[in-house]
Amino acid sequence: MSGGCVRLVQGIEVSAIPANETDENDPLPVFHGGDLDAARKDFPDAPEPWIDLSTGINPVPYLLPPFEASALQRLPSAGDLLALKRVAAEAYGAGGAENVAAAPGSQILIETLPRLRARARVAVVGPTYAEHAAAWGRAGHAVETVRDLPAGGHFEIVVVVNPNNPDGRVHDAARLADVARDLATRGGLLIVDEAFADFEPGLCEPCDLGPAAVRLRSFGKSYGLAGLRLGFALAAPALARQVETALGPWAVSGPALAAGLAALPDRAWRREAALARAHDAARLDRMIRRGSGLVVGGTALFRTATFDDGPALFRRLGEAGIYVRRFPDTPAQLRFGLPPDKAAWCRLSRVLKPA
Amino acid sequence: MSGGCVRLVQGIEVSAIPANETDENDPLPVFHGGDLDAARKDFPDAPEPWIDLSTGINPVPYLLPPFEASALQRLPSAGDLLALKRVAAEAYGAGGAENVAAAPGSQILIETLPRLRARARVAVVGPTYAEHAAAWGRAGHAVETVRDLPAGGHFEIVVVVNPNNPDGRVHDAARLADVARDLATRGGLLIVDEAFADFEPGLCEPCDLGPAAVRLRSFGKSYGLAGLRLGFALAAPALARQVETALGPWAVSGPALAAGLAALPDRAWRREAALARAHDAARLDRMIRRGSGLVVGGTALFRTATFDDGPALFRRLGEAGIYVRRFPDTPAQLRFGLPPDKAAWCRLSRVLKPA
Repeated sequence: MSGGCVRLVQGIEVSAIPANETDENDPLPVFHGGDLDAARKDFPDAPEPWIDLSTGINPVPYLLPPFEASALQRLPSAGDLLALKRVAAEAYGAGGAENVAAAPGSQILIETLPRLRARARVAVVGPTYAEHAAAWGRAGHAVETVRDLPAGGHFEIVVVVNPNNPDGRVHDAARLADVARDLATRGGLLIVDEAFADFEPGLCEPCDLGPAAVRLRSFGKSYGLAGLRLGFALAAPALARQVETALGPWAVSGPALAAGLAALPDRAWRREAALARAHDAARLDRMIRRGSGLVVGGTALFRTATFDDGPALFRRLGEAGIYVRRFPDTPAQLRFGLPPDKAAWCRLSRVLKPA
Repeated sequence: MSGGCVRLVQGIEVSAIPANETDENDPLPVFHGGDLDAARKDFPDAPEPWIDLSTGINPVPYLLPPFEASALQRLPSAGDLLALKRVAAEAYGAGGAENVAAAPGSQILIETLPRLRARARVAVVGPTYAEHAAAWGRAGHAVETVRDLPAGGHFEIVVVVNPNNPDGRVHDAARLADVARDLATRGGLLIVDEAFADFEPGLCEPCDLGPAAVRLRSFGKSYGLAGLRLGFALAAPALARQVETALGPWAVSGPALAAGLAALPDRAWRREAALARAHDAARLDRMIRRGSGLVVGGTALFRTATFDDGPALFRRLGEAGIYVRRFPDTPAQLRFGLPPDKAAWCRLSRVLKPA
């Protein structure tokens, strides 16, 4: 079945900025998963509790020690921030603390980078996470969505999500280094969004893409702590410092700082979590295939598939209290996060069972 | 003694961007209080635990219920964010949710606003919190520090901290409204940083300064939860929306959201905290005067005073494990936060006692 994946991925037509969903009060210009309030409104008769599979957040979070009172009450100290950047550099293979800027989630980095650059021609390798093109567009840059990493010349900024969301496409490290080198000669910048890279083995070698590249990492997704808001920009020292300055002092909260300090050095947990989630992902693929879905790709934290009648399946899932991610411009396609527990796996299995 | 205050305030010469302290590794361009690591380095023989009086954070925090797991694990929902903006609008007298943008601390709002405006002539009413002038300068605007609210004409952007930090100076509400009206006629913007306004009675009437004004509020300072990072911009709906868009979705963490939802509607706590801190502030003033200090002003959360030999007193305090805020360009001046408990009051009293 997997033989058809590549062609199908190429065939997906998702605009860079999908049209809003029907809710006129939605304050966001880009449609996102993760909001069960919307699901409840669409399916008022669904059983509670809802099973939220609309995001790619690890459903088995890192177990944190209780926060100390000082983490809530005091401003985060410069020493703690430095320690956090050190463990992040180590965990993400990024040199030292001077190569790291810490942020309240990687989303705010996506918003910030476009405002640090003069007007440029920007290539976003897509279809992909829509906030990149939206943020560069809002900041006045000329944005094009391209199918592949551009070979050279035309663009000053290239944005690529690796592995890609939603199709899991992985870009060759040597190819990324080539693009970064080419951009470096022209004062350009390569942005590699590695939000879903933590559990993908061998993805970021070589990790040092030189002075014209920045990698973005999301702490919340792989550690199952998305509510804490913690993300990182990994770059040459000058750029890391520029990003940090743009966010200002105390950008990262005390609880996020404590969580990062506890979890990032824990190599054993990450190794075991990567194996366990890869196992879950394989199980999810089997279930999707039994439900006549064609898995087009994904990561250890989500799987994306097409169905003969995606909207009907979205409705059947919603009526069963299961919220998955749909894509306004590609209704055949649905993205599934990992079920959190046995009851969730069973409920999903029942809906996906062949009729 | 208070008769001399006004003249002394006028006499303070603090540059908009104070020179860095001696630590060359300090990643921040502006000197801040709140970092005990720096104090420990300067006074290695001081008794532990240190008493940190270098910030203006309420030492008696709002007591939070434990965070639900979902606050850490899930992305904050649009519904919760809307509820937070509603209670913030109510607490700060700012119309409705559509007048509020929520942020991970008010500092990031200070960084964000300058990047939303075309190059402008900016007046910062100072001496004041140095990050305002620094942020507008970094974003390429032409910044001048002025002694008073400008009467008209020359500036497109006016920034004022009300009550001011560190001298507690309060600006007349009608005068602020005049300035905002004048700026509105020229597409300008008045920024009123109300970081220390929560406990100052009657400060923000009238609160509606029209479409050319934005007020900034800090949750962490008055609720004693600075580590959580929560702040607000209060403005006409279009500007509030613009700020929110610049921060992107999920800018506020789950714990900060839960804390705001719990604390902001609690009017009784805020009323009682304001009274208790005003009582503390008066006690601190008496202690400073006994120590031959001249109190030049402050708010319910900090007091600023000048001393014949400020640097010597800073050293005596440091050697006793008490960290207060000094100002590189006005060495006679020290700012004292409120001692958190009886032991801290006593230790401070011993150092300030007349020789």
